[in-house]
Amino acid sequence: MGDYQVGVQQDALGAVQLELGGNPNSLALRRPFDPLAHDLEASFRLTRFADLKGRGCKVPQEVLNKLVEGLQQDYNSGGDHEHFMHMAIPRIGIGLDCSVTPLRHGGLVLVQTTDFFYPLVDDPYMMGKIACANVLSDLYAMGVTECDNMLMLLGVSTKMTEKERDVVIPLIMRGFKDSALEAGTTVTGGQTVVNPWCTIGGVASTVAQPNEYIVPDNAVVGDVLVLTKPLGTQVAVNAHQWLDQPERWNRIKLVVSEEDVRKAYHRAMDSMARLNRIASRLMHKYNAHGATDVTGFGLLGHAQTLASHQKNEVSFVIHNLPVIAKMAAVAKACGNMFQLLQGHSAETSGGLLICLPREQAAAYCKDIEKQEGYQAWIIGIVEKGNRTARIIDKPRVIEVPAKE
Amino acid sequence: MGDYQVGVQQDALGAVQLELGGNPNSLALRRPFDPLAHDLEASFRLTRFADLKGRGCKVPQEVLNKLVEGLQQDYNSGGDHEHFMHMAIPRIGIGLDCSVTPLRHGGLVLVQTTDFFYPLVDDPYMMGKIACANVLSDLYAMGVTECDNMLMLLGVSTKMTEKERDVVIPLIMRGFKDSALEAGTTVTGGQTVVNPWCTIGGVASTVAQPNEYIVPDNAVVGDVLVLTKPLGTQVAVNAHQWLDQPERWNRIKLVVSEEDVRKAYHRAMDSMARLNRIASRLMHKYNAHGATDVTGFGLLGHAQTLASHQKNEVSFVIHNLPVIAKMAAVAKACGNMFQLLQGHSAETSGGLLICLPREQAAAYCKDIEKQEGYQAWIIGIVEKGNRTARIIDKPRVIEVPAKE
Repeated sequence: MGDYQVGVQQDALGAVQLELGGNPNSLALRRPFDPLAHDLEASFRLTRFADLKGRGCKVPQEVLNKLVEGLQQDYNSGGDHEHFMHMAIPRIGIGLDCSVTPLRHGGLVLVQTTDFFYPLVDDPYMMGKIACANVLSDLYAMGVTECDNMLMLLGVSTKMTEKERDVVIPLIMRGFKDSALEAGTTVTGGQTVVNPWCTIGGVASTVAQPNEYIVPDNAVVGDVLVLTKPLGTQVAVNAHQWLDQPERWNRIKLVVSEEDVRKAYHRAMDSMARLNRIASRLMHKYNAHGATDVTGFGLLGHAQTLASHQKNEVSFVIHNLPVIAKMAAVAKACGNMFQLLQGHSAETSGGLLICLPREQAAAYCKDIEKQEGYQAWIIGIVEKGNRTARIIDKPRVIEVPAKE
Repeated sequence: MGDYQVGVQQDALGAVQLELGGNPNSLALRRPFDPLAHDLEASFRLTRFADLKGRGCKVPQEVLNKLVEGLQQDYNSGGDHEHFMHMAIPRIGIGLDCSVTPLRHGGLVLVQTTDFFYPLVDDPYMMGKIACANVLSDLYAMGVTECDNMLMLLGVSTKMTEKERDVVIPLIMRGFKDSALEAGTTVTGGQTVVNPWCTIGGVASTVAQPNEYIVPDNAVVGDVLVLTKPLGTQVAVNAHQWLDQPERWNRIKLVVSEEDVRKAYHRAMDSMARLNRIASRLMHKYNAHGATDVTGFGLLGHAQTLASHQKNEVSFVIHNLPVIAKMAAVAKACGNMFQLLQGHSAETSGGLLICLPREQAAAYCKDIEKQEGYQAWIIGIVEKGNRTARIIDKPRVIEVPAKE
């Protein structure tokens, strides 16, 4: 038997208003999480219940490719011509952010995605919101703006006291569900296990008509690349954790103040909890040729995957890197361990990277800013090429302030 | 971006024949996993990559209820009459094995479930098969015999060497996918993370017409309860692990031989890898009034949940406990830690527990045995009552031999 199924249908709009108070920037005003206010020890830190953070927990891209490719070869070496034929037919579903499965009913497809990871912020409620936004982001990257159903995946850390568990887990669940409501969907079930590391994630599914999604393979020479959220979330959440670790903090304190780090952390939290839904809706309005969302493999990793799946002989060249204020300096000061400016720093619930017709891109960015109060940036161009992506030698770093 | 999406459509029948060779019992003939044959150390044990096993990893039922109930109350205490109204409408989706979500298109519903857990057998390929069968089982419990799509969830243990990872993970993946093919479905995507404990699970989804599923709330007085797999999987996998642990083994060696334990282990592995699909299909043929599958909360836990959701004033009384041979004795010899005969021992990928009209039950059991070569058992009756379930004082234990 599955764990539990909750089916409370709620007025999504009500929940959004409750959360946002009508002010699209008010998430940024949320007070820091205070463990004492929840009867927890002052030293409680959710991020200590895992050794890896957020999308930084992914199996490295090249390892994963090896594991999965091996499997595909297995499946294609059976000498069965039927299988070979299937390989020759263009398939939807390989290398996309979601799986897209034709259904038995009415020309519909099932669009689905799953993701789970570990705490990277200390506020359990915000952690739930971020996890939900991160799962939904895969649907949004494919231009799917409606989610029909969500499931929640939870791992309760073996290292939590009962008290911690009883306080923290409901907060995470509530954040996840509130984010789902904000997205106009509901969480109807899930699975909860005991695990050494606290784990949070979910599954998002939509049954769609073919015109509801955008297959991300249609970039043409002359398109531009737009990014809808700044980079640097992984740097910010680590820098914030280092405030408690003097030997780490000493390495970066010459380039940032404590205040800078707190601001960046809240900017990152706000950014990660923000849904890519409007960004997705506007992809239809401005005729996007394809998109992906930037997460565990970093900007360049995801740009490369997107480039590799294009129908046309194109390549992506990235000139500009919008980064949460001061995080480029922090990334440099700590020995380039994140490889942020090389495009390899993991992001969690990052922005959409979208191929747009050049003449539509500025209007896209203006529209998203008008609707949400957040900037988007033209960061690169689509050239003729061999389906690869690169960042130019000295990219321009755009410092994105904590408050816009 | 999601991890990977593989979309190879394969001839399911071909795969089934490959695996089973046309003999429904041939799974039981599978040779024990030999680490050396895969270039691993002779001492390699997959089960050592987690401290909990299979569905034994679930958060205790009462804790989970508390966490989830708290959330539901939250959602219903907002003073919004809309929410209250929703609570008053009979919902599909609470306490069921799957979530059932009405869709925007054509009167269809999305039936979905997810599950993941830790290794409980040492054969990685079989572990993959068991994980897949276990996820699908939630669909089958609702009478849904077609699965439209699966996603795979994997946690690669931080304690695995690269070599171990590269051998074991593809075997697990392949087992999972072969089981999906046997079920006539495909794995089109997934998520892979690094985790202290090796983790394996998935998501199963179907878009169905209303007549394709059986809402499990229709038991009537006079029905009987049928169970389609023996109990004792958790006892068997633990006893097998104790073969390597002299101090544990000494506690049970008076009641079982090494050979008994090996047989029981293989019987358990075979049973857990077996799909509940035919059991599900026959629910329609013999007019089942509802079912659930027996997993982490044990026979009684799941019987109680099923009883609590009945429309009629009924209770379930269980008289017979079919148990893998010798495992009842083992459970007693080790101080009743499993509470097997009390109905609390966790099962993984257990059988369906089905409410059937009395006059159809024998035919159901005969039909399943004819089609699959496995016994099913009438284990109890449905009486007038207050929607609870119990096991009688001295239930009859049916010893289920390793080979039938």
